[in-house]
Amino acid sequence: MPDKYTLHYFNGTALGEPIRYLLAFGKFDWEDVRYKCDLGQDKGFLAPFGQLPFLEINGKAYAQCTAISRYLGSLVGLSGRDALENLAIDMAVDTFHDLRLRIVSWAYDFNLESKAAKKGPLMTEQIPFYMKKLEQLVKDNDGYVANGRLSWGDLLFAAPFKYLNVLVGFDLLEPYPTLKQLVQEVEAIPQIAEYLAKRPATTF
Amino acid sequence: MPDKYTLHYFNGTALGEPIRYLLAFGKFDWEDVRYKCDLGQDKGFLAPFGQLPFLEINGKAYAQCTAISRYLGSLVGLSGRDALENLAIDMAVDTFHDLRLRIVSWAYDFNLESKAAKKGPLMTEQIPFYMKKLEQLVKDNDGYVANGRLSWGDLLFAAPFKYLNVLVGFDLLEPYPTLKQLVQEVEAIPQIAEYLAKRPATTF
Repeated sequence: MPDKYTLHYFNGTALGEPIRYLLAFGKFDWEDVRYKCDLGQDKGFLAPFGQLPFLEINGKAYAQCTAISRYLGSLVGLSGRDALENLAIDMAVDTFHDLRLRIVSWAYDFNLESKAAKKGPLMTEQIPFYMKKLEQLVKDNDGYVANGRLSWGDLLFAAPFKYLNVLVGFDLLEPYPTLKQLVQEVEAIPQIAEYLAKRPATTF
Repeated sequence: MPDKYTLHYFNGTALGEPIRYLLAFGKFDWEDVRYKCDLGQDKGFLAPFGQLPFLEINGKAYAQCTAISRYLGSLVGLSGRDALENLAIDMAVDTFHDLRLRIVSWAYDFNLESKAAKKGPLMTEQIPFYMKKLEQLVKDNDGYVANGRLSWGDLLFAAPFKYLNVLVGFDLLEPYPTLKQLVQEVEAIPQIAEYLAKRPATTF
């Protein structure tokens, strides 16, 4: 019997979307459970570390967006060809998360004074620093985050930009044509385009 | 000719130490370059994303502690036996980083009001939540973070506790005997014990 996958996440893109892209890419038998706010008491016991997203594989729950994406990537032929190629993918992914965490650290800072102090450096230094580095990285890798061809790292990179753009209030990709093209290329992969056409409209 | 490794990091444990543990474990030919404060202009151009640690492998620079640790783990036989075992390791490692990031978000918050507001929830809720979850995880895996045997995830977990304990000001492991035993077991691995005996005395 084929494996049965159930993704548990909020009704938005963010850290659930890379997993959805990979499940769609691999044409897995999967269910897309979307929570309106919190986990809900009925499902909370399943979340291995109290957090979304988590993925049930044949009823067993696995946590962590990146770990799950790397695993699904290995199942659908989107890993590197050797350990050094996997290192290149992982390095790009972790650097993307560094950028994401800078944005998140500002966006979810509920101390207004602290939040205001972070905004200038984030917008004028940190975001341009990482986006330029990533633009150059993708240029150097023939349009992909690593190794000159498509990997799960490209799907993980492309999927959360809708969410990040909502957080910052503008299109992060606009000044970076190579990154923009990569995101468009991922969205045009037939299985992902098919998923996107059916994806529920969400605010993030 | 064997590969030549040069680790660039601050003169402390933190995110450099898992890489040092793995380089020691594998008895690689490696150099341990320790910076007193920042990168220094002479080496800054080498850091792929402007950050420490980075590892030079035969002169080529690779970034990101976790990506490098996973790579070195695969070279020294400390990966999982299959993709699902690797997922279990990655899940544990990323959950450890969630805990670390909670601590770091408080420790490096330079807004004193914001920092003071974070301290209570960190100390009474977040740290106990993650440490209890990790203690249970290691219990469930026969004393290791995954799969019932030693992996690079155990080395990555064990190495930064000196640093984390300095940040919080107490021994995080003290109430968690299973985690404490895991850290002690890693430190007693002969190659790592040999490295620790020679390790420079540092403040973190």
